[in-house]
Amino acid sequence: MKDEKYMRLALNLAEKGCGKVNPNPLVGAVIVKNSKVIGKGYHMEYGGFHAEREAISSCCECPEGADMYVTLEPCCHQGKQPPCTEAIIQAGIKHVIVGSYDPNPLVSGKGIQMLKEHGIKVTENFLREECDSVNYVFFNFISTGFPYVVMKYAMTMDGKIAVRTGESRWVTGKEARKQVHRDRNRYSAVMVGIGTVLKDDPLLTCRIAGGRNPIRIVCDTDLRIPEDSQIVKTSREIRTIIATASNDVRQYRKIQQAGCEIFHIPVKNGHIDLKKLMRKLGEINIDSVLLEGGATINWAALEADIVNKIQVYISPKLFGGGRAPSPIGGKGVSMPAAAFMASPPKITFFNDDILLESEVMKKCLQE
Amino acid sequence: MKDEKYMRLALNLAEKGCGKVNPNPLVGAVIVKNSKVIGKGYHMEYGGFHAEREAISSCCECPEGADMYVTLEPCCHQGKQPPCTEAIIQAGIKHVIVGSYDPNPLVSGKGIQMLKEHGIKVTENFLREECDSVNYVFFNFISTGFPYVVMKYAMTMDGKIAVRTGESRWVTGKEARKQVHRDRNRYSAVMVGIGTVLKDDPLLTCRIAGGRNPIRIVCDTDLRIPEDSQIVKTSREIRTIIATASNDVRQYRKIQQAGCEIFHIPVKNGHIDLKKLMRKLGEINIDSVLLEGGATINWAALEADIVNKIQVYISPKLFGGGRAPSPIGGKGVSMPAAAFMASPPKITFFNDDILLESEVMKKCLQE
Repeated sequence: MKDEKYMRLALNLAEKGCGKVNPNPLVGAVIVKNSKVIGKGYHMEYGGFHAEREAISSCCECPEGADMYVTLEPCCHQGKQPPCTEAIIQAGIKHVIVGSYDPNPLVSGKGIQMLKEHGIKVTENFLREECDSVNYVFFNFISTGFPYVVMKYAMTMDGKIAVRTGESRWVTGKEARKQVHRDRNRYSAVMVGIGTVLKDDPLLTCRIAGGRNPIRIVCDTDLRIPEDSQIVKTSREIRTIIATASNDVRQYRKIQQAGCEIFHIPVKNGHIDLKKLMRKLGEINIDSVLLEGGATINWAALEADIVNKIQVYISPKLFGGGRAPSPIGGKGVSMPAAAFMASPPKITFFNDDILLESEVMKKCLQE
Repeated sequence: MKDEKYMRLALNLAEKGCGKVNPNPLVGAVIVKNSKVIGKGYHMEYGGFHAEREAISSCCECPEGADMYVTLEPCCHQGKQPPCTEAIIQAGIKHVIVGSYDPNPLVSGKGIQMLKEHGIKVTENFLREECDSVNYVFFNFISTGFPYVVMKYAMTMDGKIAVRTGESRWVTGKEARKQVHRDRNRYSAVMVGIGTVLKDDPLLTCRIAGGRNPIRIVCDTDLRIPEDSQIVKTSREIRTIIATASNDVRQYRKIQQAGCEIFHIPVKNGHIDLKKLMRKLGEINIDSVLLEGGATINWAALEADIVNKIQVYISPKLFGGGRAPSPIGGKGVSMPAAAFMASPPKITFFNDDILLESEVMKKCLQE
């Protein structure tokens, strides 16, 4: 029971790095000696000390002979930081309790092996499920090179994201909308289609205390984004990527000069090839994308097989309307058996609203 | 604690009358003497003995001096059955523990008063919330004269009730569909629009062991129902009401001769006036209607302000499709603030599917 308490403390520490360490994993570490926590630390920001070194350097007494609880296998390779195994060995830690394995091929078991070779006792797989669950973004990124894509939308109980006029403010209440801002902090980037920009002129910033703005990505096949849109006007302060298939060099330059980056992406099925865009985002270390609609890009994303998770906020109200938009548009599947399948939803309550979260089963379509 | 056990036993007995007593309430009674259950009963069918008499006549020893737990206030008026208060007094019961008050103006407190006047101790409001919750249909019917209307639909996590072709078999899995059949047993009638008949040609029967078929109601403004539809063909065996505004006497007769009843209802907003239809159904003692779609009638029902509850089955899959139908069609509200509001949903799981149930706030529109 005490072991679990220490590991959960390490997990809580790990979560503190949320939004600051991408594309690195969230890691927390706790050092315990004679039933007393003598040191703790977490990976605080990308490029900074790893959790194990933070914990060791925080120790209020000598860590020799102590136990270390760490949510992820310590690294044994030289990256932006020297290997953590070295620090653990030098500190004289005698027992390391590890949650998740590091799937990074440079580590993956070698970290644990190195500790053992130095006579350190290692307990593996401790609260592994909980430890794994904080790093689904990292695990996906390290193993596929693609960002983890979360498709988020808010709808009524009759499946509408707006009334018939397109007006959508607001479907859900304040608490649910606050959670969206927490997720803008959590994920590296937020992505919308040009339709949403033209309709809502959003900022897509993160409005919670201590949060950071995600990189903004606009899928804009024909480069229609207005220079006076809020996104373009703030693109010198907040990194903004416009993904387009347009060859209109004049417009291209204008948008670039305003502060946006342009990614030139070929078209597929009438929409920029989202799989290619995701690969390109992965290459620049964007490990996660919060896809905030609307209906057209949602279908394009589903069709391109890039969606890992859906977040469906449901508000207990009804709009009705045969022409009121529903969350996923496009062509859609041709028969019920061809549906995109998702896992049984995890449910969270935000006052009167509920959030359903499911993993989308990939169809492994050919590119 | 023992008191609660006995009342919960009475509640379980009450539920056994489900689908058989409408428009009467579900009632269960348990008689206890010297900490032993000596009799139990429930209202088994419309026109049959009330729960109290069933319990008294089931007693394995003399009920004199015993306690009676009854989920609803005993009646004190002559209906299809003589008053229960009489039977309780005659049996020599010394203490009656009552759950709900009977809102029937012929009873409403008078039953309890009569017991007290005869020197019987009465405990009121015992587990009242639970006792009230089994009789929401009865309470609504006795106080309004209108049937309790449950709008039920099954949709994907992206709010679709079918794919773009209209094909909808199946959205949800077997367990969820079984629950629909339990509800067809529970509610007096099931209602659909002519669109659903033309598209799916359903039977709308109750397919669970021991269940009974609900009365079937088809809203068919222009009397388009085909004589060879499954519903018309089985209308001699299962009571079937076609509600129409048509004056086509020839067609009218054909459908009547096949076995259906015709209700002539005027048109309102391009659809038969559902409020008027509900009043007429109430007049023939239909206390509850399960509205099984589709999108057109769902909107008409919402607009007519006749819906008491929505049941939203959600399957963890995605259809996509800008033209795939969503559950409530029609014109829809003109702005988010004009939404029909519902209560925070109660959630039930059926394997991978979930069921959200919310009460719809009536708008109290003018008729």
